[in-house]
Amino acid sequence: MLAEFLGTFVLILLGVGSVALTVAGLPGSGRRMDPFGAADWIIICWGWGLGVVFGVYVAGGVSGAHMNPAVTLAFAVRRTLAWRKVLPYWLAQVAGAFVAAALVYASYRWAIDFFNQKEGLARDESLPTFSIFATFPSEYFGNSWWGPLLDQIVGTGILLLLICAVSDGRNMAPLANLAPYITGLVVVAIGMTFGTNAGYAINPARDFGPRLFAYFEGWGDIALPGTFDWYSGYWWIPIVGPLIGGVIGMLAYDLMISPLVKARSGPEQEGRVPEKPTAEG
Amino acid sequence: MLAEFLGTFVLILLGVGSVALTVAGLPGSGRRMDPFGAADWIIICWGWGLGVVFGVYVAGGVSGAHMNPAVTLAFAVRRTLAWRKVLPYWLAQVAGAFVAAALVYASYRWAIDFFNQKEGLARDESLPTFSIFATFPSEYFGNSWWGPLLDQIVGTGILLLLICAVSDGRNMAPLANLAPYITGLVVVAIGMTFGTNAGYAINPARDFGPRLFAYFEGWGDIALPGTFDWYSGYWWIPIVGPLIGGVIGMLAYDLMISPLVKARSGPEQEGRVPEKPTAEG
Amino acid sequence: MLAEFLGTFVLILLGVGSVALTVAGLPGSGRRMDPFGAADWIIICWGWGLGVVFGVYVAGGVSGAHMNPAVTLAFAVRRTLAWRKVLPYWLAQVAGAFVAAALVYASYRWAIDFFNQKEGLARDESLPTFSIFATFPSEYFGNSWWGPLLDQIVGTGILLLLICAVSDGRNMAPLANLAPYITGLVVVAIGMTFGTNAGYAINPARDFGPRLFAYFEGWGDIALPGTFDWYSGYWWIPIVGPLIGGVIGMLAYDLMISPLVKARSGPEQEGRVPEKPTAEG
Amino acid sequence: MLAEFLGTFVLILLGVGSVALTVAGLPGSGRRMDPFGAADWIIICWGWGLGVVFGVYVAGGVSGAHMNPAVTLAFAVRRTLAWRKVLPYWLAQVAGAFVAAALVYASYRWAIDFFNQKEGLARDESLPTFSIFATFPSEYFGNSWWGPLLDQIVGTGILLLLICAVSDGRNMAPLANLAPYITGLVVVAIGMTFGTNAGYAINPARDFGPRLFAYFEGWGDIALPGTFDWYSGYWWIPIVGPLIGGVIGMLAYDLMISPLVKARSGPEQEGRVPEKPTAEG
Repeated sequence: MLAEFLGTFVLILLGVGSVALTVAGLPGSGRRMDPFGAADWIIICWGWGLGVVFGVYVAGGVSGAHMNPAVTLAFAVRRTLAWRKVLPYWLAQVAGAFVAAALVYASYRWAIDFFNQKEGLARDESLPTFSIFATFPSEYFGNSWWGPLLDQIVGTGILLLLICAVSDGRNMAPLANLAPYITGLVVVAIGMTFGTNAGYAINPARDFGPRLFAYFEGWGDIALPGTFDWYSGYWWIPIVGPLIGGVIGMLAYDLMISPLVKARSGPEQEGRVPEKPTAEG
Repeated sequence: MLAEFLGTFVLILLGVGSVALTVAGLPGSGRRMDPFGAADWIIICWGWGLGVVFGVYVAGGVSGAHMNPAVTLAFAVRRTLAWRKVLPYWLAQVAGAFVAAALVYASYRWAIDFFNQKEGLARDESLPTFSIFATFPSEYFGNSWWGPLLDQIVGTGILLLLICAVSDGRNMAPLANLAPYITGLVVVAIGMTFGTNAGYAINPARDFGPRLFAYFEGWGDIALPGTFDWYSGYWWIPIVGPLIGGVIGMLAYDLMISPLVKARSGPEQEGRVPEKPTAEG
Repeated sequence: MLAEFLGTFVLILLGVGSVALTVAGLPGSGRRMDPFGAADWIIICWGWGLGVVFGVYVAGGVSGAHMNPAVTLAFAVRRTLAWRKVLPYWLAQVAGAFVAAALVYASYRWAIDFFNQKEGLARDESLPTFSIFATFPSEYFGNSWWGPLLDQIVGTGILLLLICAVSDGRNMAPLANLAPYITGLVVVAIGMTFGTNAGYAINPARDFGPRLFAYFEGWGDIALPGTFDWYSGYWWIPIVGPLIGGVIGMLAYDLMISPLVKARSGPEQEGRVPEKPTAEG
Repeated sequence: MLAEFLGTFVLILLGVGSVALTVAGLPGSGRRMDPFGAADWIIICWGWGLGVVFGVYVAGGVSGAHMNPAVTLAFAVRRTLAWRKVLPYWLAQVAGAFVAAALVYASYRWAIDFFNQKEGLARDESLPTFSIFATFPSEYFGNSWWGPLLDQIVGTGILLLLICAVSDGRNMAPLANLAPYITGLVVVAIGMTFGTNAGYAINPARDFGPRLFAYFEGWGDIALPGTFDWYSGYWWIPIVGPLIGGVIGMLAYDLMISPLVKARSGPEQEGRVPEKPTAEG
């Protein structure tokens, strides 16, 4: 529990921090002179990826470092985690994400206010600074909720498929305690391939914790239901999508690859993979 | 077979996804304000590289994770793979690539249509969105088919030369199950050095599977023979070039380096390298 | 001592060198045509990160490669380092940083003078070239000293929390002598998430050594107290902030995670982690 | 010998290829729309770094993969390489570099001609395309030969200092055959910190082989002595500088760090480090 809290805290601190740096920090530092672009996106992808890497290094030796309710759910379905642990894990993850968002805000509030002032935006109409904390879909989705939901399902499906692969000792799981590094690269990969459709939450805690914080801190109507309908009605998608997608990704691995590696490594390894070297973003 | 399918699926999902992100996702996200450039290219190189990394982590423990007909052919010539497995492997690879392209399309169709609409392009005249799926040569090649063919031979030659090196246990093959990571870096390297001449297919399945999908999904004349001659007549080059180049690269290693490392490691290791830790992009 | 000197020398040589490259080298090379932006920031983050990687590879086998007075202090508080070693370590670190700054200056003085001449700036009014050597806060902090101080506390807190994690053998510390690489990634991560607020010194020696050198070499009033008040009065923040933050980060790990991993790994490992595989930036 | 040839071939193929991609490939591909900048520099740094990584994976198990006359000289001075092997190694290295430059040219000649035509430059006055093959100093050095020479000494000094560190088994040399990866990062680091002053040859073969090729292929007066004085008179600096700097860097490690690690690891390891896991760029 404490480990899940601290692991998710590290993940969100670095991930949300990297968005804050590109949105408000770099432009406000007096040195940045180019527009937001692909190099910023690289920073964000590595920020979240390294967040996973170090979240797992912090919490992996204790709780397995899920740091993501979708991972927790998938492992409960897989029976490598007791069902009674699911809710406590979820709470610890959301709490860790909330506190991390608060610390990012504490460090970046000067930069955020400077940015909004320069752009002439009130906080509760400032989508760019809101994007530091929570996710929303690209405008091209229009009013479609299926588009972003599918995006979340696909992204989290890849996440769980690959987590299952890199933590499967009968397959090619990295040794020498380097699984956290490779697991972080999973999230770098998802960010660089399916990240822009809807901000690649792929993690209910990652989105909901900071969203809740942003709601309390002045981004009210954007963050949660109110007058600003579409964005505020979006909050459930990065919760439901990842929970569904994660289970699908895990099943894809267990139905297609697990039987094959089991066949190769012999019948003596009937049990499931131990819970330990798993992780997420 | 199933492993080759799923490994190639992961490779193409991430690789094609990264091109989709730079072409249609980032510009359409409302945040991207810089023109397509070198930072986009970095994202694409890492997208394909990480596609290889995780394709191998998924399939490596089962089939050896060729994920590339050129690798399969080279290993058949090398006699580390039975010839009768070649065609089934090829089919599984192309099928995996096709299905992955379909899933990328499902996730990105809003972004693709938005991009084409903004640019005022019909789908079957939109080279940028076609480039998400399949490759074509730079305009400076003019009508030369030898230029891109040479490019594919060189690129795939490097690929197989380096795959042979990093999977040769008598040389310095990475241990601790980190060969997939290093193998992915091979593809990052090729992308950053010979990627722009003709889109570094260096893999017949990578190009033909998604090309076939694009053909069915509205990019008809660009993708395969029709009225739009040059591009549509190009499809055979990223098939033939890699098959030739791969064998050359493998032979370069086996004729020049293999005898030397064999001499150093002693005569007891007469057999070939085992098939297992190989991979590709 | 000598190892701390040489390790910090390598860290600062590469780190300060990377800033020099982006500020003066690339624009003066006749090839750079884009404005300072996010891709430059990526170079700086990797420059400092690789500085840590190789500082640890040089000094890690001898002194533990603190290379940072904040790390030294935290480990003294933790009692994994004798208090009497603290001051000598600090001196060696500042000396290494000073000499490294001198060597960067020797290599880059043509580029620096060219830059200042082009911009029409005297050396002691050239903030960009001063930023090669020492740090200062973003303009949005105004006259607040609490903002940058908090930033330094947060950044160094993350640093020590993660160093404690990746060097804890009972948790998931990387093996195969790859801890220096992962430790370098800690500093890449901090740079990409909390780097722009105040230049992520997170290391008193990193800031004070090169600042002293810059003071002697013509950036006088910017570097240390003089007529140019705010910046010159800033020097104590990247000293005090990191010393406080480092202890907090270490305590966070030792109070929250250490008891948990100790419980898991059994009572026979009562002692603290050995001093060896630690590091910093 | 053959291994040195092939290792250097791989190094130069990827390194020179990455410059070709940024200078001529990406702008000519019809997709690149931004000016040459920091993201291009990142591609070049990784191109050379990955060139080292894979040059070592190819040749490391046979010859130790020096791939650089400066490394060969330093190891001869260190007596870990027989002096009689020095000249043959040098020849093999230059030959490998020459052939690699030829293959890059064969693949990129369409792109090179397209670039020069667009810019209206004859080949022997086209500094940008010459920069694909060989190095030259930034304009800010004016007529100073001491500036670039110092730059080459510093760069190659860092190279050898760090190679000695990461290949010293008594210190923290990476295990699991990952030394080639870390050694490649040495060259990434030098590129990102001291690369722009004079193109970071830091390797006589890397500069002289491709320079010779460019001389024969139409960049005559720029490449070697002729009418275009300054650049053509430059060729000896990236030969002499690295040879001096390499020995200094090696001595710095052996005089300052070697005695310390020897003291720690005990007297039984009196001999020098074995020649094997060394490398370069």
